[in-house]
Amino acid sequence: MIPLDDAIKLVLDSARIIETENVDLHSAVGKILAQDVVADADQPPFSKSLVDGYAVGFDCESTNGMQQLAIIDRVDAGQSSSQTVGDKTAVQIMTGAPIPPGTSAVVMVEETKLLDANTVAIDADKVQHEQFILQQGAVCQSADVVATTGSRLTPARIGVLAEAGCARPLVYRDPSISIVTTGDEIVPVDSKTSDRCIRNSNGPLLVAAARQVTDNYRYIGHIADEMSVLVEALEAGLKSHVLVITGGVSMGQKDLIPEALNQLGVRQVFHKVNLKPGKPAWFGVFENDVHRCLVFGLPGNPVSTFVCFELLVKSALRKMRGQHNPGRFDESAAAILKTAFTNRGNRFLLQPGIYCGRSHEVEVLQWIGSADQIRLAAANCLIEFPASSSYSVGDQVVVRRI
Amino acid sequence: MIPLDDAIKLVLDSARIIETENVDLHSAVGKILAQDVVADADQPPFSKSLVDGYAVGFDCESTNGMQQLAIIDRVDAGQSSSQTVGDKTAVQIMTGAPIPPGTSAVVMVEETKLLDANTVAIDADKVQHEQFILQQGAVCQSADVVATTGSRLTPARIGVLAEAGCARPLVYRDPSISIVTTGDEIVPVDSKTSDRCIRNSNGPLLVAAARQVTDNYRYIGHIADEMSVLVEALEAGLKSHVLVITGGVSMGQKDLIPEALNQLGVRQVFHKVNLKPGKPAWFGVFENDVHRCLVFGLPGNPVSTFVCFELLVKSALRKMRGQHNPGRFDESAAAILKTAFTNRGNRFLLQPGIYCGRSHEVEVLQWIGSADQIRLAAANCLIEFPASSSYSVGDQVVVRRI
Repeated sequence: MIPLDDAIKLVLDSARIIETENVDLHSAVGKILAQDVVADADQPPFSKSLVDGYAVGFDCESTNGMQQLAIIDRVDAGQSSSQTVGDKTAVQIMTGAPIPPGTSAVVMVEETKLLDANTVAIDADKVQHEQFILQQGAVCQSADVVATTGSRLTPARIGVLAEAGCARPLVYRDPSISIVTTGDEIVPVDSKTSDRCIRNSNGPLLVAAARQVTDNYRYIGHIADEMSVLVEALEAGLKSHVLVITGGVSMGQKDLIPEALNQLGVRQVFHKVNLKPGKPAWFGVFENDVHRCLVFGLPGNPVSTFVCFELLVKSALRKMRGQHNPGRFDESAAAILKTAFTNRGNRFLLQPGIYCGRSHEVEVLQWIGSADQIRLAAANCLIEFPASSSYSVGDQVVVRRI
Repeated sequence: MIPLDDAIKLVLDSARIIETENVDLHSAVGKILAQDVVADADQPPFSKSLVDGYAVGFDCESTNGMQQLAIIDRVDAGQSSSQTVGDKTAVQIMTGAPIPPGTSAVVMVEETKLLDANTVAIDADKVQHEQFILQQGAVCQSADVVATTGSRLTPARIGVLAEAGCARPLVYRDPSISIVTTGDEIVPVDSKTSDRCIRNSNGPLLVAAARQVTDNYRYIGHIADEMSVLVEALEAGLKSHVLVITGGVSMGQKDLIPEALNQLGVRQVFHKVNLKPGKPAWFGVFENDVHRCLVFGLPGNPVSTFVCFELLVKSALRKMRGQHNPGRFDESAAAILKTAFTNRGNRFLLQPGIYCGRSHEVEVLQWIGSADQIRLAAANCLIEFPASSSYSVGDQVVVRRI
């Protein structure tokens, strides 16, 4: 039995970033950038007006009172004016249009008065030098790096790439994942339960969890606890970058997974983690000249499976798709306990809870163990309780968002 | 100009939940449940063993010392035993298997000693009544509601549905969204910028933002500031549940969107919101006997567009797909300012920031206004600063995750 942090480290050490590909910007959201993106021009590429109004040329420091200015041109966005603005002239200008030569400031149309078709009145006392002008290169300059390898492509970052002309960014490919469920007490979801059988919830649960990280998933199926069919199913799964199996890794007579994987040449890295729920977790690596597959044998109880997937499998998937901090939950937070809690056990406990961002408080959900998916589904976090620890109301704990 | 909260309320009041559909569990992650799901049986449906070991029948209160028990049967998961366990007998049992009649407790295999093929020794002093038995109905009872309308289908909740036999849950359909970008200074992403033109970042940005909420999106294209082609493009967009347009809603000579929408019979609900960035935002509703479309005219600066999409459009999309609390960001949090900040303006300001869940501190990102996508992309939150407000280091503010 190894500590959780060691288990995560061993998983990450075994995970390799996989290939890259160029994708269209419209398909890039959520992907991880595999290149630095460099601005090919200043941003903005020209000094431009931030408002609709008038470009004026008078000296803003020394000019006072109402000015009557002759309107000598109009410049729309996408156009430019060859007219130079002077002391007594103005150019009508639209938001986003380049400022004409000689411009000292732009005045919002709401702050002006049109005297006739060719004359505008402007109060110079209210005009500050260079107001409402976005100077060329103010956001970034040509050759600046505007997005770096390993960045997640959020909508805002996709906007940055578009602005820089990066129409088909290089990103990391999603790893492929295959899922196998086992357990002879399991019947399909559309079957009835009985006095000895329960339904297959791990299959749908794992497919859903995998889809949160990769589009490249495959549910191989629910496989009987019989060595020959198991080996065949697992062999198919080893063609993926990641193979996840539930059940069959504990101490039972029919816990055949470690032996089946051994037959297939999967090298065991660890078996059993100091974690509740999730202790029986098994991890190994399959490798030949051309392919590498990380293999996770997760305990069959749905909550154990979920927790191991969140902690171990997702860490691997994140690293394989190039993400920064792959071993962390996207969000872990400090929280204030609303309920006293004692972990009497000798394992590191992850207890479901409900965390409130506004108050930073967390409520411990009382559950009845690792078959209790209903309480797990109500939770928005897992609360960390080290072995043999005791906490009072108001104590600080660490929560991991789920 | 209306307050932001009023704008959000008006948007939500206009948004209607759209149709429902039954989907396969493997496609359900992220959807919102449109039905209550009821357990058709107790969960677990039978009392079962939580470990691999031996079901024993002795009275745990009154039995002491080492007991030699005759192994009278073995029960695997998915099987059952017709043997009744008594004072001096045991049944070998696997995790998940139903406990045999007469069972008072289950003893983990690690705590037992096999004396011969048919006899096991167990220390009765260490055995507690009913240990390692998950009683029938302990998680939920038949006819209990296990998931309610409006719940988000996370992996854990999908596990709950599977357990309850709900193989094709009723969920809300994703609303369809059409996107139109405008602005004559805009060139395609794969074109060069010039002394008057910038690239189209709003199109890719909005497609990415839409895809975070719905799979049903369509980018109609970048449309010239010319009334006839605009009207044609917008008319196509009105066939969706939501139409988003960027640019053309401010005070410029070529800000044609409100007039174009008016010609198409879109009823204006509001124009201009007390918000920075995002003031010029326009919102209206198109409705006939068979169809309803919410129409958002967003300011053309990418950061303004992004903020208005997050606050207004996503609120509508969330309500239309049945989500609880559609008007809030999924996560807003209280945060401690790391930097003093003054909002001198007369508008409600959303300033990009970097929030840390471990310390609850937030750092204000200094940006150069609503064209500055680079700083926006670096942010993980928007910090709320009411008009004319001043904050010192250590003051508490509200942040909205992005």
